[in-house]
Amino acid sequence: MKFKLILSFLLLALGFSAFSQEKQSNHNSAAAEKGLIKVSIMYPFAEGKTFNMDYYETKHMPMVAGLLGSNLVRYTIEKGLSSGVPNQPLPYMAIGTFYVKSLNDYQAAIAPNINAIRADFANYTNIAPVILVSEVVK
Amino acid sequence: MKFKLILSFLLLALGFSAFSQEKQSNHNSAAAEKGLIKVSIMYPFAEGKTFNMDYYETKHMPMVAGLLGSNLVRYTIEKGLSSGVPNQPLPYMAIGTFYVKSLNDYQAAIAPNINAIRADFANYTNIAPVILVSEVVK
Repeated sequence: MKFKLILSFLLLALGFSAFSQEKQSNHNSAAAEKGLIKVSIMYPFAEGKTFNMDYYETKHMPMVAGLLGSNLVRYTIEKGLSSGVPNQPLPYMAIGTFYVKSLNDYQAAIAPNINAIRADFANYTNIAPVILVSEVVK
Repeated sequence: MKFKLILSFLLLALGFSAFSQEKQSNHNSAAAEKGLIKVSIMYPFAEGKTFNMDYYETKHMPMVAGLLGSNLVRYTIEKGLSSGVPNQPLPYMAIGTFYVKSLNDYQAAIAPNINAIRADFANYTNIAPVILVSEVVK
Protein backbone atom coordinates (compact mmCIF):
# COMPACT_ATOMS: atom_id res chain seq x y z
CA MET A 1 0.00 0.00 0.00
CA LYS A 2 2.85 2.34 0.89
CA PHE A 3 4.62 1.34 -2.36
CA LYS A 4 1.54 2.19 -4.43
CA LEU A 5 1.40 5.58 -2.78
CA ILE A 6 5.07 6.29 -3.58
CA LEU A 7 4.56 5.14 -7.17
CA SER A 8 1.55 7.43 -7.54
CA PHE A 9 3.65 10.36 -6.32
CA LEU A 10 6.46 9.51 -8.73
CA LEU A 11 4.06 9.28 -11.70
CA LEU A 12 2.48 12.56 -10.70
CA ALA A 13 5.89 14.24 -10.43
CA LEU A 14 6.92 12.83 -13.84
CA GLY A 15 3.73 14.05 -15.47
CA PHE A 16 4.19 17.51 -14.00
CA SER A 17 7.82 17.69 -15.15
CA ALA A 18 6.83 16.66 -18.72
CA PHE A 19 4.08 19.27 -18.71
CA SER A 20 6.40 22.08 -17.64
CA GLN A 21 9.01 21.06 -20.23
CA GLU A 22 6.38 21.17 -22.95
CA LYS A 23 5.42 24.66 -21.81
CA GLN A 24 9.08 25.70 -21.92
CA SER A 25 9.60 24.48 -25.49
CA ASN A 26 6.54 26.42 -26.60
CA HIS A 27 8.25 29.52 -25.29
CA ASN A 28 11.36 28.75 -27.32
CA SER A 29 10.18 29.57 -30.84
CA ALA A 30 13.46 28.61 -32.54
CA ALA A 31 13.37 25.02 -31.23
CA ALA A 32 9.66 24.71 -31.99
CA GLU A 33 10.15 25.75 -35.63
CA LYS A 34 12.82 23.20 -36.60
CA GLY A 35 11.45 20.92 -39.35
CA LEU A 36 8.63 23.27 -40.34
CA ILE A 37 8.12 24.07 -44.03
CA LYS A 38 8.47 27.70 -45.12
CA VAL A 39 6.71 28.92 -48.24
CA SER A 40 8.30 32.28 -49.08
CA ILE A 41 6.70 34.53 -51.68
CA MET A 42 9.48 36.88 -52.76
CA TYR A 43 8.86 40.05 -54.80
CA PRO A 44 12.01 40.98 -56.79
CA PHE A 45 12.84 44.67 -57.09
CA ALA A 46 13.24 46.23 -60.53
CA GLU A 47 12.83 49.69 -62.04
CA GLY A 48 9.13 50.61 -62.37
CA LYS A 49 7.93 47.91 -59.96
CA THR A 50 5.50 48.90 -57.21
CA PHE A 51 4.37 47.26 -53.98
CA ASN A 52 1.63 48.46 -51.59
CA MET A 53 2.77 47.15 -48.20
CA ASP A 54 -0.33 48.40 -46.40
CA TYR A 55 -2.72 46.42 -48.63
CA TYR A 56 -0.43 43.38 -48.49
CA GLU A 57 -0.33 43.42 -44.68
CA THR A 58 -3.98 44.23 -43.97
CA LYS A 59 -5.78 42.45 -46.85
CA HIS A 60 -3.82 39.99 -49.00
CA MET A 61 -1.78 38.06 -46.42
CA PRO A 62 -4.67 37.68 -43.91
CA MET A 63 -6.88 36.42 -46.79
CA VAL A 64 -4.40 33.71 -47.81
CA ALA A 65 -3.56 32.85 -44.18
CA GLY A 66 -7.27 32.35 -43.55
CA LEU A 67 -7.33 29.52 -46.10
CA LEU A 68 -4.63 27.48 -44.36
CA GLY A 69 -6.41 26.46 -41.15
CA SER A 70 -4.46 24.63 -38.44
CA ASN A 71 -1.67 23.74 -40.90
CA LEU A 72 -0.44 27.34 -40.56
CA VAL A 73 1.88 27.86 -37.57
CA ARG A 74 2.50 31.56 -38.25
CA TYR A 75 3.24 33.94 -41.09
CA THR A 76 5.65 36.81 -41.42
CA ILE A 77 6.08 39.85 -43.66
CA GLU A 78 9.34 41.67 -44.32
CA LYS A 79 10.11 44.83 -46.22
CA GLY A 80 13.30 44.93 -48.33
CA LEU A 81 15.62 47.80 -47.37
CA SER A 82 18.86 47.28 -49.29
CA SER A 83 21.36 44.84 -50.66
CA GLY A 84 23.98 43.85 -48.12
CA VAL A 85 26.62 44.26 -50.85
CA PRO A 86 27.71 47.82 -51.85
CA ASN A 87 26.56 48.95 -55.34
CA GLN A 88 24.21 45.98 -55.76
CA PRO A 89 20.48 46.63 -56.32
CA LEU A 90 17.91 45.69 -53.68
CA PRO A 91 17.15 41.98 -54.30
CA TYR A 92 13.52 41.99 -53.06
CA MET A 93 10.97 44.70 -52.27
CA ALA A 94 9.02 42.41 -49.93
CA ILE A 95 8.76 38.79 -48.77
CA GLY A 96 5.74 37.07 -47.25
CA THR A 97 6.32 33.71 -45.55
CA PHE A 98 3.96 31.00 -44.36
CA TYR A 99 5.34 28.54 -41.78
CA VAL A 100 3.33 25.33 -42.25
CA LYS A 101 3.45 21.77 -40.93
CA SER A 102 2.70 20.10 -44.27
CA LEU A 103 3.48 21.22 -47.83
CA ASN A 104 0.80 18.83 -49.21
CA ASP A 105 -1.87 20.40 -47.00
CA TYR A 106 -0.68 23.88 -48.03
CA GLN A 107 -0.96 23.01 -51.72
CA ALA A 108 -4.38 21.35 -51.21
CA ALA A 109 -5.69 24.51 -49.52
CA ILE A 110 -4.24 26.94 -52.10
CA ALA A 111 -5.06 25.04 -55.34
CA PRO A 112 -8.86 25.61 -55.37
CA ASN A 113 -8.30 29.33 -54.54
CA ILE A 114 -5.35 30.11 -56.81
CA ASN A 115 -7.36 32.27 -59.23
CA ALA A 116 -8.76 34.47 -56.45
CA ILE A 117 -5.26 34.81 -54.93
CA ARG A 118 -3.69 35.76 -58.29
CA ALA A 119 -6.53 38.19 -59.06
CA ASP A 120 -5.73 40.02 -55.81
CA PHE A 121 -2.07 40.57 -56.87
CA ALA A 122 -3.12 43.55 -59.05
CA ASN A 123 -4.43 45.30 -55.91
CA TYR A 124 -0.94 45.70 -54.43
CA THR A 125 1.82 44.95 -56.95
CA ASN A 126 2.89 44.59 -60.58
CA ILE A 127 5.70 42.16 -59.66
CA ALA A 128 5.64 38.45 -60.56
CA PRO A 129 6.87 36.78 -57.36
CA VAL A 130 9.52 34.07 -56.98
CA ILE A 131 8.41 31.29 -54.63
CA LEU A 132 10.81 29.28 -52.46
CA VAL A 133 9.81 26.18 -50.51
CA SER A 134 12.34 25.46 -47.78
CA GLU A 135 12.75 23.57 -44.52
CA VAL A 136 13.72 25.14 -41.19
CA VAL A 137 17.09 23.57 -40.24
CA LYS A 138 17.67 25.88 -37.25
CA MET B 1 -2.68 66.42 -1.61
CA LYS B 2 -5.56 64.14 -2.57
CA PHE B 3 -4.82 64.92 -6.25
CA LYS B 4 -1.18 63.88 -5.83
CA LEU B 5 -2.30 60.61 -4.29
CA ILE B 6 -4.65 59.87 -7.21
CA LEU B 7 -1.90 60.78 -9.68
CA SER B 8 0.51 58.42 -7.93
CA PHE B 9 -2.00 55.60 -8.20
CA LEU B 10 -2.59 56.31 -11.87
CA LEU B 11 1.12 56.32 -12.63
CA LEU B 12 1.56 53.09 -10.69
CA ALA B 13 -1.32 51.45 -12.59
CA LEU B 14 0.10 52.66 -15.89
CA GLY B 15 3.54 51.30 -15.05
CA PHE B 16 2.08 47.95 -14.07
CA SER B 17 0.04 47.74 -17.27
CA ALA B 18 3.09 48.55 -19.41
CA PHE B 19 5.09 45.93 -17.53
CA SER B 20 2.53 43.17 -18.09
CA GLN B 21 2.18 44.05 -21.77
CA GLU B 22 5.94 43.85 -22.18
CA LYS B 23 5.92 40.39 -20.58
CA GLN B 24 3.15 39.29 -22.94
CA SER B 25 4.94 40.51 -26.04
CA ASN B 26 8.11 38.67 -25.00
CA HIS B 27 6.09 35.47 -25.02
CA ASN B 28 4.74 36.26 -28.47
CA SER B 29 7.81 35.93 -30.68
CA ALA B 30 6.09 37.45 -33.73
CA ALA B 31 5.22 40.66 -31.88
CA ALA B 32 8.69 40.81 -30.29
CA GLU B 33 10.36 40.60 -33.73
CA LYS B 34 8.48 43.47 -35.37
CA GLY B 35 10.94 46.22 -36.32
CA LEU B 36 14.00 43.95 -36.13
CA ILE B 37 16.49 43.97 -39.02
CA LYS B 38 17.02 40.73 -40.92
CA VAL B 39 20.28 40.14 -42.77
CA SER B 40 19.61 37.18 -45.08
CA ILE B 41 22.53 35.48 -46.84
CA MET B 42 20.93 33.64 -49.76
CA TYR B 43 22.76 30.98 -51.79
CA PRO B 44 21.26 30.74 -55.33
CA PHE B 45 20.97 27.29 -56.85
CA ALA B 46 22.61 26.59 -60.20
CA GLU B 47 24.01 23.54 -62.01
CA GLY B 48 27.34 22.48 -60.50
CA LYS B 49 26.88 24.45 -57.28
CA THR B 50 27.50 22.71 -53.96
CA PHE B 51 26.58 23.47 -50.36
CA ASN B 52 27.69 21.59 -47.22
CA MET B 53 24.80 22.18 -44.79
CA ASP B 54 26.51 20.32 -41.95
CA TYR B 55 29.59 22.60 -42.01
CA TYR B 56 27.38 25.67 -42.44
CA GLU B 57 25.25 24.77 -39.41
CA THR B 58 27.97 23.57 -37.06
CA LYS B 59 30.92 25.83 -38.01
CA HIS B 60 30.27 28.84 -40.26
CA MET B 61 27.05 30.28 -38.83
CA PRO B 62 28.06 29.88 -35.15
CA MET B 63 31.40 31.60 -35.99
CA VAL B 64 29.68 34.63 -37.54
CA ALA B 65 26.95 34.69 -34.86
CA GLY B 66 29.70 34.78 -32.23
CA LEU B 67 30.93 38.10 -33.61
CA LEU B 68 27.58 39.87 -33.18
CA GLY B 69 27.25 40.01 -29.39
CA SER B 70 24.04 41.30 -27.84
CA ASN B 71 22.97 42.93 -31.13
CA LEU B 72 22.00 39.43 -32.33
CA VAL B 73 18.48 38.40 -31.26
CA ARG B 74 18.57 35.01 -33.00
CA TYR B 75 19.65 33.39 -36.24
CA THR B 76 18.00 30.85 -38.49
CA ILE B 77 19.07 28.44 -41.22
CA GLU B 78 16.81 27.05 -43.93
CA LYS B 79 17.43 24.46 -46.64
CA GLY B 80 15.88 25.06 -50.08
CA LEU B 81 13.61 22.20 -51.20
CA SER B 82 11.90 23.38 -54.39
CA SER B 83 10.37 26.23 -56.28
CA GLY B 84 6.74 26.80 -55.44
CA VAL B 85 6.06 27.21 -59.15
CA PRO B 86 5.92 24.06 -61.37
CA ASN B 87 8.83 23.66 -63.84
CA GLN B 88 10.82 26.48 -62.23
CA PRO B 89 14.29 25.71 -60.83
CA LEU B 90 14.96 25.86 -57.07
CA PRO B 91 15.68 29.56 -56.32
CA TYR B 92 18.06 29.03 -53.34
CA MET B 93 19.95 26.05 -51.94
CA ALA B 94 20.15 27.58 -48.47
CA ILE B 95 19.52 30.81 -46.58
CA GLY B 96 21.11 31.93 -43.31
CA THR B 97 19.46 34.85 -41.49
CA PHE B 98 20.63 37.05 -38.62
CA TYR B 99 17.90 38.94 -36.72
CA VAL B 100 19.61 42.02 -35.28
CA LYS B 101 18.57 45.19 -33.47
CA SER B 102 20.88 47.52 -35.39
CA LEU B 103 22.23 47.31 -38.94
CA ASN B 104 25.05 49.75 -38.08
CA ASP B 105 26.20 47.54 -35.20
CA TYR B 106 26.01 44.46 -37.46
CA GLN B 107 28.18 46.14 -40.10
CA ALA B 108 30.63 47.41 -37.47
CA ALA B 109 31.04 43.87 -36.11
CA ILE B 110 31.39 42.20 -39.53
CA ALA B 111 33.70 44.72 -41.28
CA PRO B 112 36.94 43.92 -39.38
CA ASN B 113 36.29 40.17 -39.86
CA ILE B 114 35.09 40.14 -43.47
CA ASN B 115 38.23 38.45 -44.85
CA ALA B 116 38.04 35.59 -42.34
CA ILE B 117 34.32 35.13 -43.08
CA ARG B 118 34.90 35.09 -46.85
CA ALA B 119 37.86 32.71 -46.51
CA ASP B 120 35.55 30.26 -44.72
CA PHE B 121 33.11 30.20 -47.69
CA ALA B 122 35.35 27.73 -49.58
CA ASN B 123 34.88 25.23 -46.72
CA TYR B 124 31.18 24.74 -47.50
CA THR B 125 30.18 26.24 -50.87
CA ASN B 126 31.20 27.49 -54.31
CA ILE B 127 28.18 29.82 -54.51
CA ALA B 128 28.47 33.62 -54.35
CA PRO B 129 25.60 34.61 -52.05
CA VAL B 130 22.99 37.33 -52.54
CA ILE B 131 22.46 39.42 -49.41
CA LEU B 132 19.14 41.04 -48.48
CA VAL B 133 18.73 43.53 -45.66
CA SER B 134 15.06 43.78 -44.65
CA GLU B 135 12.84 44.91 -41.80
CA VAL B 136 10.33 42.68 -39.99
CA VAL B 137 6.88 44.20 -40.67
CA LYS B 138 4.93 41.34 -39.11
